[in-house]
Amino acid sequence: MAAFHPLAASRVRISPLLPAAAMAGTVGAASYVHHHRRRFCAIVATAAASPVPAAAATEFDFQAYMGERAAAVNRALDASIPADEPPAALHEAMRYALLAGGKRVRPALCLAACAVVGGREAWAMPAAAAVEMVHTMSLVHDDLPCMDDDDLRRGKPTCHVVYGEPIAVLTGDALLSLSFHHMARFDSYPPDIDVDKHPARVVRAIGELARCIGSEGLVAGQVVDLEMTGSTETVPLDRLEYIHLHKTAALLEASVVIGAILGGGSDEQIERLRKYARSIGLLFQVVDDILDVTKSSEELGKTAGKDLASDKTTYPKLLGLEKSREFAEKLLSDAREQLSGFDQEKAAPLLHLANYIAYRQN
Amino acid sequence: MAAFHPLAASRVRISPLLPAAAMAGTVGAASYVHHHRRRFCAIVATAAASPVPAAAATEFDFQAYMGERAAAVNRALDASIPADEPPAALHEAMRYALLAGGKRVRPALCLAACAVVGGREAWAMPAAAAVEMVHTMSLVHDDLPCMDDDDLRRGKPTCHVVYGEPIAVLTGDALLSLSFHHMARFDSYPPDIDVDKHPARVVRAIGELARCIGSEGLVAGQVVDLEMTGSTETVPLDRLEYIHLHKTAALLEASVVIGAILGGGSDEQIERLRKYARSIGLLFQVVDDILDVTKSSEELGKTAGKDLASDKTTYPKLLGLEKSREFAEKLLSDAREQLSGFDQEKAAPLLHLANYIAYRQN
Repeated sequence: MAAFHPLAASRVRISPLLPAAAMAGTVGAASYVHHHRRRFCAIVATAAASPVPAAAATEFDFQAYMGERAAAVNRALDASIPADEPPAALHEAMRYALLAGGKRVRPALCLAACAVVGGREAWAMPAAAAVEMVHTMSLVHDDLPCMDDDDLRRGKPTCHVVYGEPIAVLTGDALLSLSFHHMARFDSYPPDIDVDKHPARVVRAIGELARCIGSEGLVAGQVVDLEMTGSTETVPLDRLEYIHLHKTAALLEASVVIGAILGGGSDEQIERLRKYARSIGLLFQVVDDILDVTKSSEELGKTAGKDLASDKTTYPKLLGLEKSREFAEKLLSDAREQLSGFDQEKAAPLLHLANYIAYRQN
Repeated sequence: MAAFHPLAASRVRISPLLPAAAMAGTVGAASYVHHHRRRFCAIVATAAASPVPAAAATEFDFQAYMGERAAAVNRALDASIPADEPPAALHEAMRYALLAGGKRVRPALCLAACAVVGGREAWAMPAAAAVEMVHTMSLVHDDLPCMDDDDLRRGKPTCHVVYGEPIAVLTGDALLSLSFHHMARFDSYPPDIDVDKHPARVVRAIGELARCIGSEGLVAGQVVDLEMTGSTETVPLDRLEYIHLHKTAALLEASVVIGAILGGGSDEQIERLRKYARSIGLLFQVVDDILDVTKSSEELGKTAGKDLASDKTTYPKLLGLEKSREFAEKLLSDAREQLSGFDQEKAAPLLHLANYIAYRQN
């Protein structure tokens, strides 16, 4: 129940998500009257009706899973950038941006996708670190004064505020190149991983990572987003979807697909997981938009939602809250459906990651 | 002889370099009195005494070689970015920066290194395009208002002047990721190149490219350069060398090494070519510094050299002109020495590229 209480946001972040079936029951019995909560009940009911057995999900400790993966990824990230070697200013800024916390959702997706196709997670650890480096790079550059001009990120001053604009630009460049270096160098892999045997997987994974960044991914999304920001017109739905698919979904998709490639997944498995990732990628953004609206109208004493204040086009603005929630339901259901063909125990992390993206409160 | 006439700079650029022995003879008979010309004669004399037979060099048409490679690389670059697909602003800016001309020295080094170890040049063409993308990315970001704030590049307005600062930052990011995408995707390679057979070479080459960009390469050089720019102190020699080795030599080294890796060179060959590349990388910068000083003192009616005007530390400033030239001689000689163990016909392009870097007038 905590997951649906607006004041319990911080608890939601650190608590395991309730398994779908249990959640549906609990929430159905609760007396919450807020519209968005009822709608979330509907999402949950849909999820409970999916072909994933409730039992498998119940036994899975999502909190422990995420905590362990985040810790391992943080260790890999920490080891990837020397703290004391020159150029000190650059390394310090890279570490500041990269080790600032965060839920490490993308690395978790990468590791979970490697495991679901039967691969050893250790195989995907360098890639898991790499997708987080790319994510951080995009945050550092998007926050720049000439872009979104954000001073705060996760409650801390942004990279350019602390280290200056030139170092922030260069930090992004260095993180971007480091992500590829990290994936390509054999000593990123644990000694018992015989990366020499599967270099073709590494090449393919690097190609996926590179593709999701530039003019087919993150950068394309940011360019179109910037074009829209200055405009007074309402962004049409297809344009909004273009922005989100590129700015948010592309890297989530790459994280999953790279994990599946490195894990030795078949082409058919990889494509099913790609569909799963596209659904949760868009879901991520739709939920973001819904949270912005619902939080602003309910959390008394807080300023209105950022998107609302800046008159930014969102799903609720274009579709209304009701239809946005229906869309979110559909996306979650689609994502879960793609997992139905996999071993259910191995698919539990990806299933719970989809639920987490749907039910998160921030 | 034209190569030593300060007013013939444009002819030098488009003319093949005279073979070392012929050049030494010609210049020895000439009555040039300018000090720097005599010093260049000395460089040439050193070169003539090297173990490379003059005959092999004589038969090589450097101008035709460079022209053909530049044309092929330009075709690859042109094909790598769609002109009419969205996001149009981004693709246009990427093409503007990437197809602005330039001598394509780095791609030529990459292709020549592939050939010298017995590889087919076609194998290295995607990598040759990739190193030019990385070079262009570093120019676009270094020119930004928050960095070197340059308005002109090769006589044309810089990327941020034409497309604005946000697009320029994103153009650099997109070019950087495109370089890796281009190397990793199999359809970059000609149909008759069986890239599937040697994915380990591609992984290793990608690792080299990634390493030369971030905190061990271009970015590190720019960071230390920026630190020095604000300072009133003279930069010590080791710091100057650090900047140049990272900002200039690292990518030249990667270009050569990547070509040798893709060409199937042995580890011993690759390391010899790495040494060759380090020498010409530093040579490139020492010659740059010498040209800045000598041009400023000789070309009447022109403003003083940019480095001199900005009180930037250069080799001539630290070592004097005489010792800077001796250093350049030494570097050229070192580079040529590394080529002595290779088939001399196949080594001709790399030999001439070293000469070109030493004797260029701009």
